[in-house]
Amino acid sequence: MPSVTEIASFLASEFPHATWTVQSVGNMSATLRHPIGSAELRPGGTVSGPVLMTVADVALYVAILGEIGIVPLAVTTSLNINFLRKPSADRAIIGHCKLIKLGRTLAVGEVNLYSEGLDDPVAHVVGTYAIPRDRS
Amino acid sequence: MPSVTEIASFLASEFPHATWTVQSVGNMSATLRHPIGSAELRPGGTVSGPVLMTVADVALYVAILGEIGIVPLAVTTSLNINFLRKPSADRAIIGHCKLIKLGRTLAVGEVNLYSEGLDDPVAHVVGTYAIPRDRS
Amino acid sequence: MPSVTEIASFLASEFPHATWTVQSVGNMSATLRHPIGSAELRPGGTVSGPVLMTVADVALYVAILGEIGIVPLAVTTSLNINFLRKPSADRAIIGHCKLIKLGRTLAVGEVNLYSEGLDDPVAHVVGTYAIPRDRS
Amino acid sequence: MPSVTEIASFLASEFPHATWTVQSVGNMSATLRHPIGSAELRPGGTVSGPVLMTVADVALYVAILGEIGIVPLAVTTSLNINFLRKPSADRAIIGHCKLIKLGRTLAVGEVNLYSEGLDDPVAHVVGTYAIPRDRS
Repeated sequence: MPSVTEIASFLASEFPHATWTVQSVGNMSATLRHPIGSAELRPGGTVSGPVLMTVADVALYVAILGEIGIVPLAVTTSLNINFLRKPSADRAIIGHCKLIKLGRTLAVGEVNLYSEGLDDPVAHVVGTYAIPRDRS
Repeated sequence: MPSVTEIASFLASEFPHATWTVQSVGNMSATLRHPIGSAELRPGGTVSGPVLMTVADVALYVAILGEIGIVPLAVTTSLNINFLRKPSADRAIIGHCKLIKLGRTLAVGEVNLYSEGLDDPVAHVVGTYAIPRDRS
Repeated sequence: MPSVTEIASFLASEFPHATWTVQSVGNMSATLRHPIGSAELRPGGTVSGPVLMTVADVALYVAILGEIGIVPLAVTTSLNINFLRKPSADRAIIGHCKLIKLGRTLAVGEVNLYSEGLDDPVAHVVGTYAIPRDRS
Repeated sequence: MPSVTEIASFLASEFPHATWTVQSVGNMSATLRHPIGSAELRPGGTVSGPVLMTVADVALYVAILGEIGIVPLAVTTSLNINFLRKPSADRAIIGHCKLIKLGRTLAVGEVNLYSEGLDDPVAHVVGTYAIPRDRS
């Protein structure tokens, strides 16, 4: 299975402008870190919802790639997010994904999102990915 | 906070025909057990989806009551279920709820549902409850 | 494609204890009616959440069968419900499903649930079904 | 209630870098248009999921502001998206929101997302917003 370095290299080519980094992958899980700057904030000093959704979506993708290998055509089919607490404006967002099902054609995972260094999640996501049948 | 016995007694009066039992409650969590008989099965020998949703919904309710006391007017506002694996036809369903947010007016929890004695969840639920403001 | 009568007959054999009836099917949609009696009520005089979820789930199933023919192995993969208003205790529940995608392996539909004769929906559901590849 | 111009002016101050425009608002609904350029695409020529989620989230916000007035503190509490079809790489994304409940403290709406000029939605969203109690 691919290493963190191999997945990070693949993602860097697929998302050349991304600022997040893959912290870990393997054992049906993955952790992503997204630094927060002024571009990710909304007035009131909160991290925008789409930034949280992006981190969750990519963390799911990375966790799946960590299990099945680098399959660019895996695509999100659904994502359900609950916003729990206001994220800190001056801390990175950490997304920790745990896959709860990895079938032949469908993967399901959950992602807890945190302001780095704090214990309580700021959002919780459940997402599903369709995995292409013919992968080589 | 109410004990398992007090919550079970309250539920027995609120849902007189229910066959499930509360196994544990406390620490932002609850576990419910629902026996499976022919009434809960669909042809093909699988537990019907609504039985799983019921167990999840009640497990959330019990976990919340365990934290805020017996507040009959707490009501479900949303429930999102992913069906993961075919449940066993001859095993009870166990629902284990963990609250991930308990605010003043909204609670959010997740529930993993299992065929009793098996490790992999058959379904995963995220649900939200509205908590009445004035509770006495 | 199957008629209302053919689908109703299939469902009657698959769910022999069901009390709901299929009112219409076709054009990527279906309407189901579920009578409400004391067994479907919770104290406080409201229709229980699992009854609403059941109506939504079956309405989705019927709408799909209306398009692809009677395929018993289509199974729900996810269901997301938002509870909007307290249902009337003395009116049947009407579920109206509209499919929004019917792919080769996945169908997605939404269901509006009503207390019969009233205009505002009591709940809104989005559900997905997996459709078996080999159907004959 | 605020006009399209008033809401657009408020949004321009709240999201100074946004490229979307409000096309209409009122009658419990809103329509948003998001132009698509290379920054919104993923390799393979598809619009990224977070762009779709952003359009849906803002369309909900605009529809709510159109009913209750400009209340900056309304915040998303949950969002559920189903991806239905691959969006066109060279068409703007249109998000059409319809509110299905507008309560005192909670609003629920659905959003259909389209590639501009095409009939079939590329994604479907249900989202909820918490509305602050004290608004002045």
